[in-house]
Amino acid sequence: MKLVLAIVQDKDGNRLSNEFIENGIRATKLSTTGGFLKAGNTTFIIGIEEERVDEVLDIIRENCSSREQYMMPPSSYDVSMETNFPYPVEVEVGGATVFVCPVDQFQKF
Amino acid sequence: MKLVLAIVQDKDGNRLSNEFIENGIRATKLSTTGGFLKAGNTTFIIGIEEERVDEVLDIIRENCSSREQYMMPPSSYDVSMETNFPYPVEVEVGGATVFVCPVDQFQKF
Amino acid sequence: MKLVLAIVQDKDGNRLSNEFIENGIRATKLSTTGGFLKAGNTTFIIGIEEERVDEVLDIIRENCSSREQYMMPPSSYDVSMETNFPYPVEVEVGGATVFVCPVDQFQKF
Ligand code: NI
Ligand code: NI
Ligand code: NI
Repeated sequence: MKLVLAIVQDKDGNRLSNEFIENGIRATKLSTTGGFLKAGNTTFIIGIEEERVDEVLDIIRENCSSREQYMMPPSSYDVSMETNFPYPVEVEVGGATVFVCPVDQFQKF
Repeated sequence: MKLVLAIVQDKDGNRLSNEFIENGIRATKLSTTGGFLKAGNTTFIIGIEEERVDEVLDIIRENCSSREQYMMPPSSYDVSMETNFPYPVEVEVGGATVFVCPVDQFQKF
Repeated sequence: MKLVLAIVQDKDGNRLSNEFIENGIRATKLSTTGGFLKAGNTTFIIGIEEERVDEVLDIIRENCSSREQYMMPPSSYDVSMETNFPYPVEVEVGGATVFVCPVDQFQKF
């Protein structure tokens, strides 16, 4: 048995939760903040048999990898601009930090 | 020293907290959600000497084990029923998932 | 790579966060409660190379050590006192509980 701690962006948290459920992987979700200005992180605690660790890592990578996305800037960006038409900007979203830790004992009561 | 992570139902969290205090076991409580539709979990982080791990596990088992209980259904269950008298239904409550993890260093400042 | 779990008082949490950022140490912050009546704890999850563990412990000790401080008592203390002038009382603030745990695998996606 291994303990997997996965810290992902909030925006990917629900999709990741659903994928874990689909695959019969029990995960507990903690609301967290921080890590270099990235507010709104979610931490998952997952208990998994050693032979399924790679499967868990694959699911996290497929759903939470860091990627670029075009987003509309928040309106405050426009205050000093001449045009009234904001345009999308490219931002990096997602990303996951994952720890796989040894477990001495695992119990369910 | 061992690190014990215990995920229990909210409804058992306060009782478990009290038992830890009574027994001189320091525990930190995190609010958590999830694990297969079971909203409202509480996660405890406990640091404990190796020879007291079994004591901690006993306290968790005694206070948080999965069990059946009769509860009144929420009123929305009654909408399409002919009778006005709801009756209690048997549900499973409680349950705990516990990880005991190795610790390389433990410090108090 | 090591996993550091640090439980500190809320009042020291922001300063500690800033020190981690200044030193290029990635930390995730969880809101937590409890541990013997000490409401308002903050738990940090830190992933760090083995050779920087001591640096992380130093930063926590310097910013979160238990110490005495003079504080004005809450007004409810004054109800039965004859004087209208509350005076500061010495209280213990701060303190940190830190676990350094082994990590089998560390991944960033
Ligand atoms: Ni799917
Ligand atoms: Ni008792
Ligand atoms: Ni500084």
